[in-house]
Amino acid sequence: MIGLGLIGGSLLRAARAAGRTAFGAGVSEVDADAASRAGFDVTTDVEAALLRAATQDAMVVLAVPLPAVEGVLRLVGQHASHCVLTDVVSVKAPVLDAVRRRVPYTRYVGGHPMAGTADSGWRAGDATLFNDAAWVVGVEEDTDLSIWAEVAQFVLDVGAHVVPLPAESHDEAVARISHLPHLLAAILATIGAEGGPLAMSLAAGSYTDGTRVAASNPELVRAMTEGNRDALLPIVDEALGRLGAARGSLASTGGLAATINAGHEGAQVLAASLDTERAGVRISLTAPDARQGLIALGERGGRITGLAGDVATGEVS
Amino acid sequence: MIGLGLIGGSLLRAARAAGRTAFGAGVSEVDADAASRAGFDVTTDVEAALLRAATQDAMVVLAVPLPAVEGVLRLVGQHASHCVLTDVVSVKAPVLDAVRRRVPYTRYVGGHPMAGTADSGWRAGDATLFNDAAWVVGVEEDTDLSIWAEVAQFVLDVGAHVVPLPAESHDEAVARISHLPHLLAAILATIGAEGGPLAMSLAAGSYTDGTRVAASNPELVRAMTEGNRDALLPIVDEALGRLGAARGSLASTGGLAATINAGHEGAQVLAASLDTERAGVRISLTAPDARQGLIALGERGGRITGLAGDVATGEVS
Repeated sequence: MIGLGLIGGSLLRAARAAGRTAFGAGVSEVDADAASRAGFDVTTDVEAALLRAATQDAMVVLAVPLPAVEGVLRLVGQHASHCVLTDVVSVKAPVLDAVRRRVPYTRYVGGHPMAGTADSGWRAGDATLFNDAAWVVGVEEDTDLSIWAEVAQFVLDVGAHVVPLPAESHDEAVARISHLPHLLAAILATIGAEGGPLAMSLAAGSYTDGTRVAASNPELVRAMTEGNRDALLPIVDEALGRLGAARGSLASTGGLAATINAGHEGAQVLAASLDTERAGVRISLTAPDARQGLIALGERGGRITGLAGDVATGEVS
Repeated sequence: MIGLGLIGGSLLRAARAAGRTAFGAGVSEVDADAASRAGFDVTTDVEAALLRAATQDAMVVLAVPLPAVEGVLRLVGQHASHCVLTDVVSVKAPVLDAVRRRVPYTRYVGGHPMAGTADSGWRAGDATLFNDAAWVVGVEEDTDLSIWAEVAQFVLDVGAHVVPLPAESHDEAVARISHLPHLLAAILATIGAEGGPLAMSLAAGSYTDGTRVAASNPELVRAMTEGNRDALLPIVDEALGRLGAARGSLASTGGLAATINAGHEGAQVLAASLDTERAGVRISLTAPDARQGLIALGERGGRITGLAGDVATGEVS
């Protein structure tokens, strides 16, 4: 585990709780001290941890923000270039690209857990953070499914469900359901605060819910949104278009029916997706079309919930 | 109580729990039946309820959506034009305007409880909905403070805190902290749902929080946002400007620092406003500058939490 913040710290706890041997390294002395005092096997020496991983043929998990990825990958290339490598970074295409450039021979399969809180650092970590969470595990055309299965098993062990997806599909989806929400929350929090003490004194559920993630560590929010620029720009354009259309309609006819009704339908789509009956699926990882089968499952909103030998089992609505 | 939906129904329960005599009327037979079966004194005959209020010199509380206000005010003018009148509608200037046109001699003081849920109807009601909630009670230049005190006492009795404000200040503030959040939630829910089952399967806290109020009854959301058009338009323009600036910055320099840092500061302003030490205040309602004192308190984010004779006590940071 390289990185001992909210995600890395939660993962180290969850891995130990699952009975896996795990050790970690983080450049933050505060986080490393706290982890060490809690009885975890950690160091602030990232190179030493990577050397140890290479010796033990351990899986290396990068749990650092996107801006730190290039630097850590350089060290991975020097010290642990043959280890199985995964990451938990919030954008996938830029990390995949960096891995291909920096450590082309590393056995890499990317990942991204859809879990978190507005807090950060080791202290905010929680062994149960990933329970039943969706965790994207990357499938590209050239993905080695035996490595994929190792990473997927780790994800299942820490309590999450595996969503198999190409980096590009992941990045487009998170632009919609994570990065745009963060931008809108930031804008709402700015406009609300400009209303002064009066606006703050009247703020109720719609405002506190709508601004909650604006309290997140701004460096981490910048890292994920700026890092997903290519996928995020068209989504921001769509939001601008829809907000502009609402503005035009309110100014001209005074009506907001189209905007509000579409939003209500959207909310029902989310509610229905949580309620839907789901059917079981089995995918043989040795089948010639296994990669396509996994990607099709992920694209349809399905999840892998178990692995036994070469067979992945899961569910889809 | 005219109206037996979420707010009217909660208010009827809270008034009874506070030991006040209360009766209600609502045009929805479903709501009236449910309220009646729960032992409340209700009817579907709004005119009969208003006549009864006039006979008993009861306070009339309008708990209907804005589009229904004009029709009910006509009946108030016919049957209960001398009663103390208040309302719980989410916008205040349009209601004040309608009262001045329709029932100029009614003893009216407007109100708006900053409480609610995404559900609606009698069944969603709750006697504790208003506990410690901010409840705006209107103060205009010509407000009779003895009527104001009657309405404020009712608000305190059902568990809320009174925020004294002119209609215009209220409408500007709720455009920021309620109506814009509803519009952004609708747009986010639309864009998320367009991502299909994949996007829904990856949706986590930032999306579910950011879209929660999009599940609200769309008729009620339209009523409040469309009804607050004059105050809402400049706020939507501000959101468009800020989102456009974020888009431009992401496209050109790739940076979102200004947007995200401002949002983080805004989130801290909200957190600080909840944490601040508050000082006690006393306002004599018979003082010549009592209206100005009440309004100044509301504009500074203060609240009235008690009334004894002619003296209102409260707190402000």
